[in-house]
Amino acid sequence: MSKFEAGLIKLLEGKNFASFVTLLKDGSPHAAPTWIDHGDIILVNTALGRLKEKNVRNDPRVALSIYDNENPYHMAAIRGKVIEITTDGAEDHVDKLAKRYIGMDKYPRRSADEKRVLIKIQAEKIHHQDYS
Amino acid sequence: MSKFEAGLIKLLEGKNFASFVTLLKDGSPHAAPTWIDHGDIILVNTALGRLKEKNVRNDPRVALSIYDNENPYHMAAIRGKVIEITTDGAEDHVDKLAKRYIGMDKYPRRSADEKRVLIKIQAEKIHHQDYS
Repeated sequence: MSKFEAGLIKLLEGKNFASFVTLLKDGSPHAAPTWIDHGDIILVNTALGRLKEKNVRNDPRVALSIYDNENPYHMAAIRGKVIEITTDGAEDHVDKLAKRYIGMDKYPRRSADEKRVLIKIQAEKIHHQDYS
Repeated sequence: MSKFEAGLIKLLEGKNFASFVTLLKDGSPHAAPTWIDHGDIILVNTALGRLKEKNVRNDPRVALSIYDNENPYHMAAIRGKVIEITTDGAEDHVDKLAKRYIGMDKYPRRSADEKRVLIKIQAEKIHHQDYS
């Protein structure tokens, strides 16, 4: 069940990387390519203690941009707010992403002391366009 | 003449889109997929009056992320500051980008009243990695 339109869902469910943008303590922006998922909301999976997690705990305002790898003129820009940061389900979820993005049952880059965390994002503005 | 390392230059000179991040008036981030270029600095070409231009006039702090379309595990995250916003050379520059990205001599999406503008970005932090 998703409130997103079909074209955007295609972007979010492809092997496309999103640029996930968070704000640093001084208010300047930080962007990094990330795997992306969605339910009713947008999901980013990272590890506890990473910059992304620190930033969204400090300021919940985020942005994402994404385009279709096979047709970059199909793209979306999303602005939103982080509504939850949780380790619940995050380990299984990163395995799900690994399956989708790289065809592996288990996320292969876990380090021994790493704890995965889910960042749940409520989209507030979506600009979705297909120039192709 | 570029101060960027070879792998990053490959990213910046490919047909890869960058996510270009600017700050809105309220300090929240805005990200959009864009064509990208570089000299000693990073170059983004947009049109006068667009959100990107308005945002960087208000706050020069920007971020970019980029990955290789053919190998998204080769990626870079860049933080920097806008050091110049100029229409000088911007019309020719967008044609150069059109040649590189879509093989056309002239940028095909110019509207009659559009004036192109170059946003020149000094990179301050570059995180460049290749997991492939």
